[in-house]
Amino acid sequence: MAKSSKANALRIGVLGASGYTGGELLRLLARHDGVELRMLSAERRAGQTLAAVFPHLGHLGAPDLIKLEDADYGALDLVFCCLPHGTTQEVIAALPRTLKIVDLSADFRLTDPKSYARWYGHEHRALELQAEAVYGLTELKRAAVAKARLVANPGCYPTSAQLPLVPLLEAGAIESGDIIIDAKSGVSGAGREAKETSLFAEVSEGINAYGIASHRHAPEIEQGLAEAARKPVIVNFTPHLMPMNRGILSSIYVKLAGGASADDLRTTLTKRYAGEPFVRVLPKGQAPATRHVRGSNLCLIGVFADRVPGRAIVLSAIDNLVKGASGQAVQNMNVMAGLAETTGLEQVALFP
Amino acid sequence: MAKSSKANALRIGVLGASGYTGGELLRLLARHDGVELRMLSAERRAGQTLAAVFPHLGHLGAPDLIKLEDADYGALDLVFCCLPHGTTQEVIAALPRTLKIVDLSADFRLTDPKSYARWYGHEHRALELQAEAVYGLTELKRAAVAKARLVANPGCYPTSAQLPLVPLLEAGAIESGDIIIDAKSGVSGAGREAKETSLFAEVSEGINAYGIASHRHAPEIEQGLAEAARKPVIVNFTPHLMPMNRGILSSIYVKLAGGASADDLRTTLTKRYAGEPFVRVLPKGQAPATRHVRGSNLCLIGVFADRVPGRAIVLSAIDNLVKGASGQAVQNMNVMAGLAETTGLEQVALFP
Amino acid sequence: MAKSSKANALRIGVLGASGYTGGELLRLLARHDGVELRMLSAERRAGQTLAAVFPHLGHLGAPDLIKLEDADYGALDLVFCCLPHGTTQEVIAALPRTLKIVDLSADFRLTDPKSYARWYGHEHRALELQAEAVYGLTELKRAAVAKARLVANPGCYPTSAQLPLVPLLEAGAIESGDIIIDAKSGVSGAGREAKETSLFAEVSEGINAYGIASHRHAPEIEQGLAEAARKPVIVNFTPHLMPMNRGILSSIYVKLAGGASADDLRTTLTKRYAGEPFVRVLPKGQAPATRHVRGSNLCLIGVFADRVPGRAIVLSAIDNLVKGASGQAVQNMNVMAGLAETTGLEQVALFP
Amino acid sequence: MAKSSKANALRIGVLGASGYTGGELLRLLARHDGVELRMLSAERRAGQTLAAVFPHLGHLGAPDLIKLEDADYGALDLVFCCLPHGTTQEVIAALPRTLKIVDLSADFRLTDPKSYARWYGHEHRALELQAEAVYGLTELKRAAVAKARLVANPGCYPTSAQLPLVPLLEAGAIESGDIIIDAKSGVSGAGREAKETSLFAEVSEGINAYGIASHRHAPEIEQGLAEAARKPVIVNFTPHLMPMNRGILSSIYVKLAGGASADDLRTTLTKRYAGEPFVRVLPKGQAPATRHVRGSNLCLIGVFADRVPGRAIVLSAIDNLVKGASGQAVQNMNVMAGLAETTGLEQVALFP
Repeated sequence: MAKSSKANALRIGVLGASGYTGGELLRLLARHDGVELRMLSAERRAGQTLAAVFPHLGHLGAPDLIKLEDADYGALDLVFCCLPHGTTQEVIAALPRTLKIVDLSADFRLTDPKSYARWYGHEHRALELQAEAVYGLTELKRAAVAKARLVANPGCYPTSAQLPLVPLLEAGAIESGDIIIDAKSGVSGAGREAKETSLFAEVSEGINAYGIASHRHAPEIEQGLAEAARKPVIVNFTPHLMPMNRGILSSIYVKLAGGASADDLRTTLTKRYAGEPFVRVLPKGQAPATRHVRGSNLCLIGVFADRVPGRAIVLSAIDNLVKGASGQAVQNMNVMAGLAETTGLEQVALFP
Repeated sequence: MAKSSKANALRIGVLGASGYTGGELLRLLARHDGVELRMLSAERRAGQTLAAVFPHLGHLGAPDLIKLEDADYGALDLVFCCLPHGTTQEVIAALPRTLKIVDLSADFRLTDPKSYARWYGHEHRALELQAEAVYGLTELKRAAVAKARLVANPGCYPTSAQLPLVPLLEAGAIESGDIIIDAKSGVSGAGREAKETSLFAEVSEGINAYGIASHRHAPEIEQGLAEAARKPVIVNFTPHLMPMNRGILSSIYVKLAGGASADDLRTTLTKRYAGEPFVRVLPKGQAPATRHVRGSNLCLIGVFADRVPGRAIVLSAIDNLVKGASGQAVQNMNVMAGLAETTGLEQVALFP
Repeated sequence: MAKSSKANALRIGVLGASGYTGGELLRLLARHDGVELRMLSAERRAGQTLAAVFPHLGHLGAPDLIKLEDADYGALDLVFCCLPHGTTQEVIAALPRTLKIVDLSADFRLTDPKSYARWYGHEHRALELQAEAVYGLTELKRAAVAKARLVANPGCYPTSAQLPLVPLLEAGAIESGDIIIDAKSGVSGAGREAKETSLFAEVSEGINAYGIASHRHAPEIEQGLAEAARKPVIVNFTPHLMPMNRGILSSIYVKLAGGASADDLRTTLTKRYAGEPFVRVLPKGQAPATRHVRGSNLCLIGVFADRVPGRAIVLSAIDNLVKGASGQAVQNMNVMAGLAETTGLEQVALFP
Repeated sequence: MAKSSKANALRIGVLGASGYTGGELLRLLARHDGVELRMLSAERRAGQTLAAVFPHLGHLGAPDLIKLEDADYGALDLVFCCLPHGTTQEVIAALPRTLKIVDLSADFRLTDPKSYARWYGHEHRALELQAEAVYGLTELKRAAVAKARLVANPGCYPTSAQLPLVPLLEAGAIESGDIIIDAKSGVSGAGREAKETSLFAEVSEGINAYGIASHRHAPEIEQGLAEAARKPVIVNFTPHLMPMNRGILSSIYVKLAGGASADDLRTTLTKRYAGEPFVRVLPKGQAPATRHVRGSNLCLIGVFADRVPGRAIVLSAIDNLVKGASGQAVQNMNVMAGLAETTGLEQVALFP
């Protein structure tokens, strides 16, 4: 992260820099040599140094936090938007169209305005931007991302579910009507807001399902799977909150189709992601663990035969703050800006 | 736990008292007023005080640990057997037949010798005892347990899966051929043996599936479900290891049958367990959490409609060391001895 | 906890029942056969069932939560007050004087009004009650507690520090001017309020000191030590927040006095607490661990010689919610009501 | 980490690559552009891929693990030695003298053979190497490290204690006879060996002191402090094991000397470390937290006035696996090889 001006560096702003996805963006951008961090906003923390909000980032020489209204957008090439949903669409609608945007909120992920209204409880307030936005699941949408001005960065759960499932549905190797996604997430996915349900004493030493049959990531997953299956898809998506900071493990139970075996699924995925730097399909018999992607932009995928005839088990592991949020956002930025896609994302997972 | 002789107290021995299920038995028996603890064995720790093995139990006045060969079985009415599988069948075969036994190992859980041999890799060495043993899922087998001399205490995962599933299969309310059990367990389930995979640094801050399509609790679950369904059952059982000491959450995905709805499943379970002190079926909309059963003998069950038509989600939470092991063992002892079933098991869950 | 009226039962109310100390009181009272729980208050949760606030207590048959203003104090013999400091003194001042009170807040712990004003930033608003209150460190104040109407239940840190230090100062075995208390606490000590600093993601996988040289438990500790030393005492008290739910370990570094050795300190403490059911002085070479008191009312104390000549190390472990709060509150209630002091407090620690 | 030969790259071997310090070295070297990893040894895992031992490092293209006896030392410029103490001195004595060595064991840290023999229970078996070795606390020994062939990489606790204490003793600002170091460590410091005391269920949700007045890091700390104080020093060093993967917080209690105040201590340290990239002295009022150095090579230091007159509190935080082990080892390698000292060590801490 350049402290002084660099000739060709992309000039970056981060809107909403005081939450976990904002902080993680800054961690990653600190080691990205093609960007210059010019602006950080955080309404309630405006006027404070980054060190006051994130002591671990205090030595990076980043600018102090400001209010959105004080931003000089003319000095920026691209902004990451880490604001709450709802607010986001209004903020982005007011930005100059010369800016490229990677939006980490949910506001522009659903392409169908009716679906948005149903799941979010209000009409979308920036419909033309919703139409313009490109869904930034990078490995699956790279060409569109490269041309996009506004990228809707995928949700954490949808990233973990779509990366394994989309190629399998495209290949007709699994049934689209019998998909069960049992997902386990670390707590940082709930954000930095002070809520009783995110307290250490409420989360540690336990696990529970939440948002059962009602989580807003379900329609996002279904949208992507429907596109792959070329027909509407409804999935069982059951998220669980568990005591770890980072990580999502999605245990996905599928019915085989078209004569495919579990080994065929693995082969399909291995081929599909052969050239990808961030998706690794594990050899037969290996199960992914979230601790092996902690802090990295990797998605690990494992495929197992089920003892129930005609079924298979697909497991995927990501770091919800990296490939599930800020890492994929940087990946999208790289693609949008024509930079090498892995720039700033070479971190090796931190284990233990 | 009486330190001096009580007139009518049940005289108890614990074989293999230095592991987690042994320690948990002692915690529970310490507050049981109908028993007198007479003997503790632990081969490698023989000669030591209980305080040396479990400092938190050091003030209970329990006898020192001895070797099995030094046990005076004539002084005992009932033993809990917390030994490793394989060893167990030989030890129990050598016990006097005047002793009642609650065995916490897997040795006598499978009734079919062929199934045992297939899953455990050797012929059973005490076939007549295997035939005699009663499977001690107390709520479902109370009458048989009451008359049993040898009770095979169920596994932790099988307890969490069968309590909700057996009544549903008996009622014909779910399909027997489409059951997916995604279970999440705390680490104490792996025992107190020093293994790299149970180290703090290998377990904390992560989650992974293990024993995929190959865990030995699968045939135990299937045996119980087959009995309920009156036909062979194969299930998907996928256990996960996660960073908590105690607790199993089983997220069970089922296909409705016979015109039943999710609400019907809840009603069926609520009626079935209406009089039970340790099984609670939660009201509509409430999801069980393991932290609310920590240290207690409770099993919490919640039922939810799925967004996928024709399917439902059944969640169950237990403490793997209590209802999943030592608590159920005490419950079985109470039934076998004609004591009030809740004696020694009134602990309220410890939260946070 | 009786659901129906008992002839001689103490009729109990809990003011502020929705926080962690309130919940823990209810867990303990649930197994206390001499009390009848008649009233629970919680301003913001009034009208809700206890199950809504604490699912693990939902089966106890406790009354629903009400507002303080709706309480019928005539139906009560004793109340536990679990309200925030400041508020507490006004609430208690308005209670009928026929009620016995165990107050878990800090409002009546400091006997010197000037000290209170200095540390809490305002004049005390119930000075006559402050004068009346008895400091309820049960083992050290038993006779006064037995006669008290209003007991100020000690803070968690002060309990862990005073239990080992008071007898040593009384014996003149340590210097009063060179006491360093490095304390490590679990997160439940910060209460159930939704604060960023108590979030799982802010607490897990780390440790930090806080309130350095400024924590309000310092004057409470010093007050007790001064009484023992018969002269003013200033201590170094440095609390640390660490990722566990429950527990305080105080590592106390002292200078030997009067020719005492570390062994002498241990002997002094062993004798002092010989008859006490809840304080255990460990044998030479054994160090207390918080996990061995989790959920119990025990205080474990260990004493070690230091390599630095003339110094010793005293370690004490308690569960901050039990002996450090609600357990000691029940212990005080038992003493105030003439019940056996251990009633309701026989829980064995939950390990692991 | 180059997979193919680089012209000027330092050719590296790692002896004992399957433990946590070995794995952490590989994580750091993976992003070091001046080295080429040529050899990894691990006796019990010889023949396996690195992925089998550390799945998170599986994509780095590192060589497979071999036995020490199969190493071709002629192909190497420098080895990191991550072997157990005792073994290490014999292995290193047998290495060709053309190799540079950074030894992460304790074997060459103590310069006094008698002290070594007393604390480690046997005579040193490579006395001439012991005399040759340079103690590699980089910030304090940079010139000697630059010329060294064999560097004894400091222990984790000694690093955290000496960095703040040595400049204060050199300045005469604190008493050398009254230093209390209460240190709290994450579990990875105990290594990857399967031991009951390192199990998740034994460590989580608790804290305890260990090695009280007998830990082998005490003489290492005292050796460094004695050099700074120019006289023998004995310290109280009390380590604690707590549930986190990484991190050491040392809370150090000192007596002021020479008229110094706590602010003077802070000023002394700030000046001493002004140009250092990895040591940050925090502004007044800020306390270091281990979570803010997780995964980074930083040492954070905070200084506070004590309420006890004439005393001060010094807090230091490091990641035990980075600045406390492998990060400092890479830092020493950089100095020994004339590379920029921060190469490969620019990682920003991973929070949360």
